[in-house]
Amino acid sequence: MRLSRYFLPVLKETPSEAQIVSHRYMLRAGMIKQASAGIYSWLPMGFKVLRKLENIVHEEQMRAGHIPMLMPTMQSADLWRESGRYDGYGEEMLRVQDRHGRDMLFSPTAEEMFTDVFRSHVKSYKDLPLTLYQIQWKFRDEIRPRFGVMRGREFYMKDGYNFDLTKEDALHAYNRHLVSYLRTYERMGLQAIPMRADSGPIGGDYTHEFLVLAETGESEVFYDSEITELKFGDREIDFDNVAQCQAVMDEFTSRYARTDETHDKALFDQVPEDRRRVARGIEVGQIFYFGTQYSDALGATVQTPEGGSVPVHMGSHGIGVSRLLGAIIEASHDEKGIIWPEGVTPFHCGIVNLKQGDEAADGACDALYKSLVALGLEPLYDDRKERAGGKFATMDLIGLPWRITVGPRGLKNGVVELTCRRTGESEELPPEQAVEKIAKIYAGL
Amino acid sequence: MRLSRYFLPVLKETPSEAQIVSHRYMLRAGMIKQASAGIYSWLPMGFKVLRKLENIVHEEQMRAGHIPMLMPTMQSADLWRESGRYDGYGEEMLRVQDRHGRDMLFSPTAEEMFTDVFRSHVKSYKDLPLTLYQIQWKFRDEIRPRFGVMRGREFYMKDGYNFDLTKEDALHAYNRHLVSYLRTYERMGLQAIPMRADSGPIGGDYTHEFLVLAETGESEVFYDSEITELKFGDREIDFDNVAQCQAVMDEFTSRYARTDETHDKALFDQVPEDRRRVARGIEVGQIFYFGTQYSDALGATVQTPEGGSVPVHMGSHGIGVSRLLGAIIEASHDEKGIIWPEGVTPFHCGIVNLKQGDEAADGACDALYKSLVALGLEPLYDDRKERAGGKFATMDLIGLPWRITVGPRGLKNGVVELTCRRTGESEELPPEQAVEKIAKIYAGL
Repeated sequence: MRLSRYFLPVLKETPSEAQIVSHRYMLRAGMIKQASAGIYSWLPMGFKVLRKLENIVHEEQMRAGHIPMLMPTMQSADLWRESGRYDGYGEEMLRVQDRHGRDMLFSPTAEEMFTDVFRSHVKSYKDLPLTLYQIQWKFRDEIRPRFGVMRGREFYMKDGYNFDLTKEDALHAYNRHLVSYLRTYERMGLQAIPMRADSGPIGGDYTHEFLVLAETGESEVFYDSEITELKFGDREIDFDNVAQCQAVMDEFTSRYARTDETHDKALFDQVPEDRRRVARGIEVGQIFYFGTQYSDALGATVQTPEGGSVPVHMGSHGIGVSRLLGAIIEASHDEKGIIWPEGVTPFHCGIVNLKQGDEAADGACDALYKSLVALGLEPLYDDRKERAGGKFATMDLIGLPWRITVGPRGLKNGVVELTCRRTGESEELPPEQAVEKIAKIYAGL
Repeated sequence: MRLSRYFLPVLKETPSEAQIVSHRYMLRAGMIKQASAGIYSWLPMGFKVLRKLENIVHEEQMRAGHIPMLMPTMQSADLWRESGRYDGYGEEMLRVQDRHGRDMLFSPTAEEMFTDVFRSHVKSYKDLPLTLYQIQWKFRDEIRPRFGVMRGREFYMKDGYNFDLTKEDALHAYNRHLVSYLRTYERMGLQAIPMRADSGPIGGDYTHEFLVLAETGESEVFYDSEITELKFGDREIDFDNVAQCQAVMDEFTSRYARTDETHDKALFDQVPEDRRRVARGIEVGQIFYFGTQYSDALGATVQTPEGGSVPVHMGSHGIGVSRLLGAIIEASHDEKGIIWPEGVTPFHCGIVNLKQGDEAADGACDALYKSLVALGLEPLYDDRKERAGGKFATMDLIGLPWRITVGPRGLKNGVVELTCRRTGESEELPPEQAVEKIAKIYAGL
């Protein structure tokens, strides 16, 4: 993309309403614009990252054998009355009447809808196991929306629902989600730690939240520092393999890691003192086994091999996709701006032309641009007639991981400058070597 | 995908509420499920096609230089009051109050939102031309929703908005949209004819609807039969080239083609009688130049090269993405079911195992499946223990363009059967040749 043809409305001033760094940088880098309280328009670069995150979530869900579909945002109140949640949900539910006076609502979550699809179509244990999911806009009418996309009212979420014959099968689905979430977050450059969460009125041990450590996190977290040394990495996983998924679950949840909601001081004190950490975290996902709560209420049963009929065991599993943009920036930035992890960056590298209009510089930039595009990469070429300082400031703010700087002086020596956004380190090298190096960095991502 | 692991709830009976064939087949093929009147859940195979259509629209819009972003579904009423449309929009607009009593609405279209983003960030003619677009869920509270996804209440639409300095520039944007739409529909296997449309209270000649011919179409259409011989084909287009886009516009709109709303009998009678056609059509898109209506109302102005300030010239351009599924099926089916065009089919081919459990048949199917996947293709392998008749009926209903049938008898002679869904023609050939042939069909799509 050539910047002169893109729409990247970078702001010079820091917007006064933004209290945390991700909100500030998303506004300043022209990624979002507030439309109403807690509701945002996704400007082109914000949308581009959102779409990348969505695609990673889809890929990892499908890899785990989960099946994508899509529910409508507007739902009839009837199903929610059947499950008993309509009256109790409170003011966070956006309630609407349509022109015929029928009660509708903007879906804040979709247990009822998925259970309804299931009960309409699945009758036999032979069709299990089954995990269906969607990535769809949700609405929760927060009383005080804040922190930009981190606690908005309209937000993009992946929510998945497993349907299983037995509790054991459902717990395998639970583990499978944990494994796939670990992969998902690592691809996004995040370390998200599964922490035992509060299961609320439903009870049971089976819910974990995934938290990204960040000073601005809304939750206080307590953990054994050994947990931050764990990496999921490239390991091959057979998602049907119960023992393999259980082993990953055990590895990533056997050490102490809890939020303030479930913190147990006595247990925490058993962690060796030099490994005890108290910090703050941002919740980016949650997995949950809740048994037959919804299948009982909505009559979602299957025939068993023996001929009887039993309610299915279910769980629900969420990833806050729009919120992840905020979380990634909270976890990866400096005083100049965002630092995108390579796996989610909106453009693979920036090209800064130090002297737009100079024949050699323009030609070299065009050639670099074409070489990168030919390799399937997406560069952002700042081809505006601006001074170099402004171009550097923009590139630092929007946080592309790599920058190639092209100027007449370097070109005389046959070199351009390749700069790493994270370390700030630069090296001079011939243009074709810079292209090669960038291609190598992104190979396999 | 192995059918035993997929969620494809095919119905045996024809649902009584479905009046037109696309609605019937989408329900029967397990693509959608009605959630409320005019509101559908997109089951996995329906979602898969929807996503393919969405991707084609994105690719073609970006090819034309248009920039994707995303607006929220819930919007404040304030902007609509500013443009003067809030009170007049009528009961089709779904109006909501949030918990603080603020008037909101579920966006039925987004002229106001895009104009607001534009006026907030663009101040100079130097940033023009600019075309921004989104693909997002919209809501129109139709009094009598019907025909499945063809006239639903919650629907998925691409809406794009061009911002230009002059009327001439805006008309180039108009032509550019026409060209990109022609490409888009052809990739989907559709012939969509641009027809002069009614511009309503705004006036002017600059609006075309794109109509797909189908007996069940909601509009009566009148056209010169020569127009159906036009193909956009593979031609290379430079979307910046004003003359080139104008030439395509002229080629595709110089013959008579109008809907009942704009039909002019005297003009139609000038078409040679043997070329006059009266038929029915389904609207799948519309392009519109409306000048400065919204930029005047909302104060979207730019500085001119001479230093003055002028309102920008705008147009809006829509493609009904969810409606397209219905339109494609209306235009491409037979009495057995859907016939997907290769460009949008949910799976590239089906594999039918005539004797599940037979070692040779199972092995051959597995090998075929793996070969196709290795080539980047997506087969749907019916690995259920069902009789052959049921498997064929399902494949015909869901309409994959190609089917490979594998049975012990053929395998003894070293062959499988490759069947074309559209023609019904079959040929016997060795498995590796069947794979090769399918790969060739999809190469370049």
